[in-house]
Amino acid sequence: MQAHWSISPLAHANAPRIRQHIDQKTKPLGALGQLESLALQLALIQGSERLTIRQPTMLVFAADHGIAEAGISIAPSAVTRQMVQNFLAGGAAINCFCRANDMQLQVVDAGMLEPLDDPRLIQQRLGAGTRNLALEPAMRREQAEQGLALGATLARAQVANGCNLLACGEMGIGNTTPAACILAALSGQPVEVCVGRGTGIDDDQYQRKLALVRQALTRLDGKRDPLQLLTEVGGFEIAQITGAILGAAEAGIPVLLDGFIVTSAAMLAVSLAPACRDYLIFSHASDEAGHRLMLAWLDAQPLLQLGLRLGEGSGAALALPLLRAAVAFYNDMASFDSAGVTV
Amino acid sequence: MQAHWSISPLAHANAPRIRQHIDQKTKPLGALGQLESLALQLALIQGSERLTIRQPTMLVFAADHGIAEAGISIAPSAVTRQMVQNFLAGGAAINCFCRANDMQLQVVDAGMLEPLDDPRLIQQRLGAGTRNLALEPAMRREQAEQGLALGATLARAQVANGCNLLACGEMGIGNTTPAACILAALSGQPVEVCVGRGTGIDDDQYQRKLALVRQALTRLDGKRDPLQLLTEVGGFEIAQITGAILGAAEAGIPVLLDGFIVTSAAMLAVSLAPACRDYLIFSHASDEAGHRLMLAWLDAQPLLQLGLRLGEGSGAALALPLLRAAVAFYNDMASFDSAGVTV
Repeated sequence: MQAHWSISPLAHANAPRIRQHIDQKTKPLGALGQLESLALQLALIQGSERLTIRQPTMLVFAADHGIAEAGISIAPSAVTRQMVQNFLAGGAAINCFCRANDMQLQVVDAGMLEPLDDPRLIQQRLGAGTRNLALEPAMRREQAEQGLALGATLARAQVANGCNLLACGEMGIGNTTPAACILAALSGQPVEVCVGRGTGIDDDQYQRKLALVRQALTRLDGKRDPLQLLTEVGGFEIAQITGAILGAAEAGIPVLLDGFIVTSAAMLAVSLAPACRDYLIFSHASDEAGHRLMLAWLDAQPLLQLGLRLGEGSGAALALPLLRAAVAFYNDMASFDSAGVTV
Repeated sequence: MQAHWSISPLAHANAPRIRQHIDQKTKPLGALGQLESLALQLALIQGSERLTIRQPTMLVFAADHGIAEAGISIAPSAVTRQMVQNFLAGGAAINCFCRANDMQLQVVDAGMLEPLDDPRLIQQRLGAGTRNLALEPAMRREQAEQGLALGATLARAQVANGCNLLACGEMGIGNTTPAACILAALSGQPVEVCVGRGTGIDDDQYQRKLALVRQALTRLDGKRDPLQLLTEVGGFEIAQITGAILGAAEAGIPVLLDGFIVTSAAMLAVSLAPACRDYLIFSHASDEAGHRLMLAWLDAQPLLQLGLRLGEGSGAALALPLLRAAVAFYNDMASFDSAGVTV
């Protein structure tokens, strides 16, 4: 296992110079709101005079979850694989949004119940779904470690191919439960506020979900070691997303995050290597209630708040144009001097 | 003057069929949040099986304001014209965002202090700036009527040229004051919550701005007739934006609104012809506090909340990719049946 992640801290000493560059643009101070913070972050990461977004790539990691056998999702595990086929055929929301926003899309089997033989699918299976995390560890420690390594390697491969902005998405029936466990364990927040209704379960299912999360957390007994958390209550896609985040940060590129599940991976990544935090861009606040707690824990301000609760990376793909807009104003907007504006 | 606006009410009877089309897409019910409402609205407006966005066009209306002589803005009136030159040279935020999002941009002189001789500028001057609305009516009634007609004609011309989505923006030093007056007069909300700091005035300026708005409203004596409001406390760009909104709605195309000033025009437009409301898309909630009151008055849910307070149409240009994403999922996303997904 990769015991140490070598992530360069950002050169925050450059921030005043970057802010000055932004402040002399022809606009009132701060008038572009969050786009200004976004441009600052991108400029700190890229460390160059002109910002670029090259081959922005969405990696969607799919996996199945033993907890799904408890019937606390709106769909059975078989739907994970069906949706992956939908991704490969170009018919899902994430396909529509990636096409609309000129983003590359790659789909990864991180461990679905049944493999899928398709040359377009990246095969990184850690197993045939995790075990039921309410009853036993979701995976073995070696699987968690291998997941981190595979995710990181895949992220680095994208960078080697010319990508300088990575986004992460996921598909996995049942995966709001591991995400809620990670949130509860790392934040210490009460289970009731960490567990949500996923894509739309009823009251009975919700009560059962709460009970199962409590059961899993009892086994953890307050431990917060991220690798142990990943092993005990994680998921194969969550492991690989965590690795992809860390790999992208090691490669020095920003990572555009999605909703509840991807952000749970970000919590693990930041716990494993706090320096990766500066590379994270938070695309949206999901309608899944616990997501706001995650964002607060990460001290993150999301770009979009559209009431999405789909996953797949949909929020991240939708936010990409805002990153392009931040780059555009940073690079191309006139200064007061150059435009002859006398404010 | 055009006494009557002939705006077709939307065929709300089609809504259930459109919702059904959205609900059989491969996603949990409602999981695309506001994008689903947006797709529904676009489908109601366009009334066709496939949605399209053709030649989306941003009209930026510029004008000057007599109230600026009171020194309650961060910049002098000369900056209106300088910024228009910046727009024409391609150096402003709105240029960057329109280029980034593939949106056409047209700039209109609705009544700057000094004309600008440039073939790229659309000349629709209602005068050399309004009068000081704190002391006297900002314009004559004929100017208000002419402004509405010019805006509507320009909108219709865009549609005749093939545009099927219009956006409005503005530039006008001092124009948060007329917008605040319109908000206060139409909503009946206290002046203190309607008046904001514009692009960043200090406490003294803010107190003076409050007093001037109160002075203007005293003259109105509670009257809420939209044409009278426009005459007494409006602006030349506000008049033409109001007309453009109404003209676009008459032509049956959606109008993408921007921030505080453009939304004050929307309040007037809805007061003049309530049927136009269904054609309005609210791009963002501005950082100008009163904007949220406007949105509430219009029962509107904005797409973006980025802390913008720039104007120019910047928020509207930034929201355009979300409209394209709504169109993309509505047109191209697979159904459960077609994708073989068995939820």
